[in-house]
Amino acid sequence: MSDSFHRMWADLAPVGRHPGSGGYRRYAWTGADTDCRAWFRAQAEARGLLCETDRNGNQWAWLGDRTAGDAVVTGSHLDSVPDGGAFDGPLGVVSSFAALDELRRRGARFTRPLAVANFGDEEGARFGLACVGSRLAAGQLTRQAAFALRDADGVSLPQAMEAAGHDPEAIGPDPERLAGIGAFVELHVEQGRALDLTGDAVGVASAIWPHGRWRFDFRGEANHAGTTRLADRRDPMLTYAETVLAARREAELAGAVATFGKVAVEPNGVNAIPSLVRGWLDSRAPDQAALDTVLAAVEQAARERAERDGTDVAVVRESFTPVVEFEHALRDEIGRILGGSVPVLGTGAGHDAGILSASVPTAMLFVRNPTGVSHSPAEYAAEDDCVAGVRALADVLEGLACG
Amino acid sequence: MSDSFHRMWADLAPVGRHPGSGGYRRYAWTGADTDCRAWFRAQAEARGLLCETDRNGNQWAWLGDRTAGDAVVTGSHLDSVPDGGAFDGPLGVVSSFAALDELRRRGARFTRPLAVANFGDEEGARFGLACVGSRLAAGQLTRQAAFALRDADGVSLPQAMEAAGHDPEAIGPDPERLAGIGAFVELHVEQGRALDLTGDAVGVASAIWPHGRWRFDFRGEANHAGTTRLADRRDPMLTYAETVLAARREAELAGAVATFGKVAVEPNGVNAIPSLVRGWLDSRAPDQAALDTVLAAVEQAARERAERDGTDVAVVRESFTPVVEFEHALRDEIGRILGGSVPVLGTGAGHDAGILSASVPTAMLFVRNPTGVSHSPAEYAAEDDCVAGVRALADVLEGLACG
Repeated sequence: MSDSFHRMWADLAPVGRHPGSGGYRRYAWTGADTDCRAWFRAQAEARGLLCETDRNGNQWAWLGDRTAGDAVVTGSHLDSVPDGGAFDGPLGVVSSFAALDELRRRGARFTRPLAVANFGDEEGARFGLACVGSRLAAGQLTRQAAFALRDADGVSLPQAMEAAGHDPEAIGPDPERLAGIGAFVELHVEQGRALDLTGDAVGVASAIWPHGRWRFDFRGEANHAGTTRLADRRDPMLTYAETVLAARREAELAGAVATFGKVAVEPNGVNAIPSLVRGWLDSRAPDQAALDTVLAAVEQAARERAERDGTDVAVVRESFTPVVEFEHALRDEIGRILGGSVPVLGTGAGHDAGILSASVPTAMLFVRNPTGVSHSPAEYAAEDDCVAGVRALADVLEGLACG
Repeated sequence: MSDSFHRMWADLAPVGRHPGSGGYRRYAWTGADTDCRAWFRAQAEARGLLCETDRNGNQWAWLGDRTAGDAVVTGSHLDSVPDGGAFDGPLGVVSSFAALDELRRRGARFTRPLAVANFGDEEGARFGLACVGSRLAAGQLTRQAAFALRDADGVSLPQAMEAAGHDPEAIGPDPERLAGIGAFVELHVEQGRALDLTGDAVGVASAIWPHGRWRFDFRGEANHAGTTRLADRRDPMLTYAETVLAARREAELAGAVATFGKVAVEPNGVNAIPSLVRGWLDSRAPDQAALDTVLAAVEQAARERAERDGTDVAVVRESFTPVVEFEHALRDEIGRILGGSVPVLGTGAGHDAGILSASVPTAMLFVRNPTGVSHSPAEYAAEDDCVAGVRALADVLEGLACG
């Protein structure tokens, strides 16, 4: 691939990288996020693209008349989970610019406007809700709900936006912008091993599993760990532990996945029985019925154990995305462009493409991940596969925008 | 009781109290700790006592010649666990000053030097090791080990001492000071319900159970919570959960107590399988054999589950205190002074008295706690019982120091 492809990666590599973990900490509206946005703007300007930030903090780099309508848009996000890998998000943005470079090298003539997008706050690492930028644009997150989001330090989303120089008063649905998009294609590193198992460098998405996040608040009574008889305890850590094991068991039974990856304990003292254990369940399944089954069974297990522990359980659904079936016409067209033998696969991961698919014809390309590791510094994609991804994306954009 | 008794409580009540939880956050060498120390000094000076801070940051308020030897010392601590109650520690210090006031009211004539002590960093809430002040004085914690202690923000104990105006170079064993003490009596709110069950306001301690803290590091592999097949996971949260339940089960079987009250997760993201779950086990038992049995069984359960989860377990003993049997001669003398019918009880809680008992004849008085709740804002002792505690302590000090 070209020098500019390698230079994009080299410029982006140090931004928000934690020296201890080696992982990325690019959280929405932080300094690392600002640096990512500056990188995006520089890439746009170096290519003579018009760079703008929309009312919801998403960035757009335009080739051609952005008001003409029926635009072809590609892109992804630059933010990360805590100690995330280098590819989740950035691979899509870097590949978009690289595909544009490739099309110019080929001398392609564009008949539709083209844009590269960087959606804000995809991972939700800071405010707990994923895809905030695309949700706001698509009217799937209200202003009021967005204004109520707070990070772990109590900073609200509007405060964070303002501190980063973005006017929070502007946020809200952006139907005109979305109406001007004829197709959105997001390239993303695969987050499982399906392509590795079929031996393909690139695949096309069929659907995104329905998925959600539920907060379980287990409340008991803080007490002295050394002097409180076991019989007198109301220890919510026990209820939490039983619920963690139930979630794994029920997910196995339903062919789903379920994870308690985040926990917060009060008072979190070595010699204090907790008063509160808060655990977040992430669960996803191939269909809605399976997901409902998992949730009901986990809640029941939690309540049964709470009865025994003398604790209380409250469950709050913090986010939910129903199954997303990507548009068949666009998917079929991409299949034709890529030659027809490209594998089609479902995924358990949420994406901005999943949000936008409700408003815009949307498709996704996946690039092989040989270990399947994601949301970790160990996340990896081979350079040859990344190059194959750029070529495939260039082919798709050429087929759609230069037809 | 006197006005000064109520005024002591009123002055101390707001110091380090968190407005949200209503609990106390008086951690070693913080601003709240400094305020507690200023309160102690003011109480000493108001009574004409000589107030000094020893090399290890413990405070002493002297009546009589502090160099004469065979002193009678009473006191406790003023620091707290996270969101601790009002009585754990302060009840002993307030009661010590109040008992001295009571003895002066009685016109008692002292034949031995008397001191009220405030031991530093008893709870270990900030640096993870309990009884740092008394351990250092008694030579049970080396300078080197103390210098290596760090808080959650990475601040070392000597840095924290220095920031609070205490010279950390001075810390270390203080055998001469301890050799000058003929008896140490610590009054403390009971942290269980034994006195409530016998219907007594005040009791005397027999022994402190052996107890320790063990850190369990469960290591797996960070990965995407939505896309990683259950079969491909190495999720340490599962191993942790099984270990929490094993600890409860094994403690029940052994007549011991075991608690996982503190946990730290990396990366602690809702949609990330953790790479590391760190859980702290606090366990105590009536004797060493029972404690050893619990630990061995919990470790075995953790390792068996880790085998299944593809995770690793490492266990580090962070602190340990063997069984403390309080001196029988002093306990019997206190029994005689208090009339012989006072109940004698064991406790699972560690105390400075337990540390000092290796160097100094030591005893403890407990004041009834009707709910048994401790290390919680809900910790409570009735005023009548607190007054009974002051009278009993005054009787004991009169019997020992005015004989």
